Amino acid sequence: MMSKSGSSLLRTAIGSFFLLTGFLYVTAQETPPALPPMTRPARIVSPEIHPDNTVTFRVSASKSDTVRVNGDWEGGRGITMTQDTAGIWSVTVGPLEPEFYGYVFIVDSVQVLDPLNPLIKRDGTRNASQLLVPGEGSDLYAVKDVPHGILSKVWYPSPTLNLIRRMYVYTPPGYENSADRYPVFYLLHGGGGDEDAWTTLGRAPHILDNLIAQGKAKPMIVVMTNGNPTQTAAPGEGSPNPISMEQAGSADMGSGKFEESLMKDVVPYIDSHYRTIANKENRALAGLSMGGIQTMNISFNHPDFCDYIGVMSMGLVNMGPERTALYPDVDNQIEALKKSGYKLYWIGCGVDDFLYQSAKDLVTALDKHQFKYIYRESTGGHTWANWRIYLSELATLLFK
Amino acid sequence: MMSKSGSSLLRTAIGSFFLLTGFLYVTAQETPPALPPMTRPARIVSPEIHPDNTVTFRVSASKSDTVRVNGDWEGGRGITMTQDTAGIWSVTVGPLEPEFYGYVFIVDSVQVLDPLNPLIKRDGTRNASQLLVPGEGSDLYAVKDVPHGILSKVWYPSPTLNLIRRMYVYTPPGYENSADRYPVFYLLHGGGGDEDAWTTLGRAPHILDNLIAQGKAKPMIVVMTNGNPTQTAAPGEGSPNPISMEQAGSADMGSGKFEESLMKDVVPYIDSHYRTIANKENRALAGLSMGGIQTMNISFNHPDFCDYIGVMSMGLVNMGPERTALYPDVDNQIEALKKSGYKLYWIGCGVDDFLYQSAKDLVTALDKHQFKYIYRESTGGHTWANWRIYLSELATLLFK
Repeated sequence: MMSKSGSSLLRTAIGSFFLLTGFLYVTAQETPPALPPMTRPARIVSPEIHPDNTVTFRVSASKSDTVRVNGDWEGGRGITMTQDTAGIWSVTVGPLEPEFYGYVFIVDSVQVLDPLNPLIKRDGTRNASQLLVPGEGSDLYAVKDVPHGILSKVWYPSPTLNLIRRMYVYTPPGYENSADRYPVFYLLHGGGGDEDAWTTLGRAPHILDNLIAQGKAKPMIVVMTNGNPTQTAAPGEGSPNPISMEQAGSADMGSGKFEESLMKDVVPYIDSHYRTIANKENRALAGLSMGGIQTMNISFNHPDFCDYIGVMSMGLVNMGPERTALYPDVDNQIEALKKSGYKLYWIGCGVDDFLYQSAKDLVTALDKHQFKYIYRESTGGHTWANWRIYLSELATLLFK
Repeated sequence: MMSKSGSSLLRTAIGSFFLLTGFLYVTAQETPPALPPMTRPARIVSPEIHPDNTVTFRVSASKSDTVRVNGDWEGGRGITMTQDTAGIWSVTVGPLEPEFYGYVFIVDSVQVLDPLNPLIKRDGTRNASQLLVPGEGSDLYAVKDVPHGILSKVWYPSPTLNLIRRMYVYTPPGYENSADRYPVFYLLHGGGGDEDAWTTLGRAPHILDNLIAQGKAKPMIVVMTNGNPTQTAAPGEGSPNPISMEQAGSADMGSGKFEESLMKDVVPYIDSHYRTIANKENRALAGLSMGGIQTMNISFNHPDFCDYIGVMSMGLVNMGPERTALYPDVDNQIEALKKSGYKLYWIGCGVDDFLYQSAKDLVTALDKHQFKYIYRESTGGHTWANWRIYLSELATLLFK
C-alpha cells in the first residue's frame, strides 16, 4: 500500500497534471474550436440567466452583418442582437416566464444552434438549443435533488411489424430495490417525432421523478415506444435501412399497424419483463397529436385494455365535409367503452391548436352519450409546452 | 369492432390527415426554421455520403462571405466551400476512410453545427455534427440488424462522495430473457468527459452489440459511470448545484475519491442489482486518459479487484524532472499485482499522443518486473478514433 507521504505527493502531482492537461486536453479533441480558448480575449457565456429571469444571449461573430435570436417564447421571433467592438453580439430578453424553451440564432441567413450552449433538444430532424428558465412553471421539468427513476433504451421484437424496435422504459425510484409490482403508463409521441421525444422535449422522466417525490403521482412504469410503424428507432439509432413509407405499404401511419403492435408486441413484452400489475385498472394510455389518434383507436377498439385514457391535442379529426369519416363507428365505440367501464377519459387541447375543433367535436360526441371525461382547455397551440403541462396534470390522476 | 369498410375508410382518411398535417405540423413546432420548408426552392441534403465514400457538405448561407468545414479526418481542417447562385455553399471531400467523424462549419467567423444534420455528438461542453462513413473500419460502430443490448441510465447513491450520481449500465442481448450471470466491464472516460462519453463518442453499446453478435466478445455487462467526483451527472442532467472543484476540497480529481467511490459504491450496487459473477475472474476495468490513471490507481491499490486491466492513452505520467513522482511506490505495486495474479494487462497508445512517453514509461516499468502485458501502439493521438479502436480490440480479449 502507498505511504501517507506518497499519497499526498500523488495528490499534488495529479492535481498539477489535471491543471496542465486541462489545457492539453483542449488541444487534443477531435473537433477543435475555430479559436483555441486560450487566445480568446475573455470567456463569454450564453445563455446567461439572470436572477430576475431576464436572459442574455451572446455569440462571437465578428464578420457577420446581422444576428438574431429565434426563441419559442411569446415575442421570441427574430430578436435583433447588437455587436460590441470585439465582435460579440448580444441581447437581453425578458424576464421570461419559467419554462423549458428552445431557441436558435440566425447568423446572417443561417439558422444555427448557440455555439456556447452544450444542451440541445431534437424535434424530429431539427435541433434547438435548450433554455430552462427556473421558477414555478418549470419546476417539474428541472433536475431536482430527488430520487430518480431509471430510464432504459430497450429493444424489443415486433413480429407484427417484422422489426426489432426501440422503446424507453422508465421505472420509478425504488423499483430496482423492491419486489413490488407497478402500474404501467403507455405514453405516445406525435407525428414527426420518435421514441426520444417524450424523454427529451417532453421531460417525462423529470416530471415523473418530481411528481412522485412530491407524492402527487403514484410510482409507475412509463413506456415510450416509437409510434412510426416503419421505423426501428430514432434517427441514427435505428436500422440503416429502415422501411420507407412507400415500401411499407400497409404499415403506414394510418394502417392501424402501430396500434396492433402495441397491443400484441409491446404490452406482452412489458408484462413479461417488468414487475407490472397486468390488468385494466393498472394501465394508462395517452398520446399527443398522432399519438392521440393512436390512443383513441386503441381505446375504442380495445375497451378492456386500460382504465385511464388521455388524448392530447387531438380529437375527432375533420379533414373535409365528411366530418365523421375518420370515426364512422364512433357512437358505437363510445358506448362500448362506456359499457366496459373506465376511470378517466382526459382530453387536453389549446385554444390556438389547429386541431382545437377536433377536440371540441370529441367532447360533443362524448356528451351525446353522457360519457364522463375531463376536458382541459389551455392557452397556446400544438406545442411541447402544452404537452408537458398536460402530462404534469394527467400523471397526477392516474391509478387513484 | 370496426367494419371492414369502416376500417378501410379510416385508413384512407388518416392517410390524408398525415399528408396534410405533415405540412401543418411543421408550422406548429416550437422553433420553426428561418425559412419554412415549403418555400425552399429545393430540399438540400447534408452530409451526403456517396457510394465511393466521398462526402458532400451543403449549407444555405446566401449572405455569408466564407464558409468552411472543420472535420476531424486527416486534412479535414478549414476546407473551403463554394457558393452557387442560389446561395447554397457546398464542397465534396474524400473519399474518406470509414470512421465515425465529427465536423462543424465555420460560417464567416462563427463555428456552427450542420443545420441539416440532426445527429450531434457532444464532447464535454462542445458539440459536433456526426458523420459515419460506412465500411470495414467503422463497421463495429454502426447500428446493425443484430440483437441489441439494453442501455440504462441508472442513479445510484455514493455515500463516499455524498452524491446521488448517474451511470450507464449496458446489459448484453439476452440478459433480459435469461437467469444467467454475467461478467462486468467497468469502463472509464477521460478528463472533460462524463458518463455519456463512452455511449456516444465511444459507441460502446454499438461496438459490444456487434462484437457479441459476431461471437468475438463474450456477453458482458458494461458499466460507465461519471468519473468526475464532484459531478452528479452530465451537463443538464445533474444536480443544478453541483459541487465546484473549490468547494469539493479533497474530492478533486487527484484525490483518489472517485476510485474509492467506484470500489465502495458502484461495484456493490452493480453486484446487488444485476446478475453478475462477482469475482476477480469476471471483472474488467479500463479507462482512457484520466480514466487510465483511475484504472492504474485501482489496479495498483486493489490488486485483487479484477483480472483484466486496460490503460488507454495513459501511463506513468511525467510532468517534470521528478518523473516518477506520480507513482512513488510503482515498483512495489507492480510486484503486488503480479503476485496477486491477473489475466490481461493491456496498454494502448498512439504514437502522436501527448502522453505517448508516459505509456512507454509504463511499459519500461512493467518490463523491469517481467510483468506480462499487451502493448498496442497505434497511429494517431489522443482521440476517440483511437479509443473506439482500443475498445474494439480489448473487448474481444476479456473473460476468456
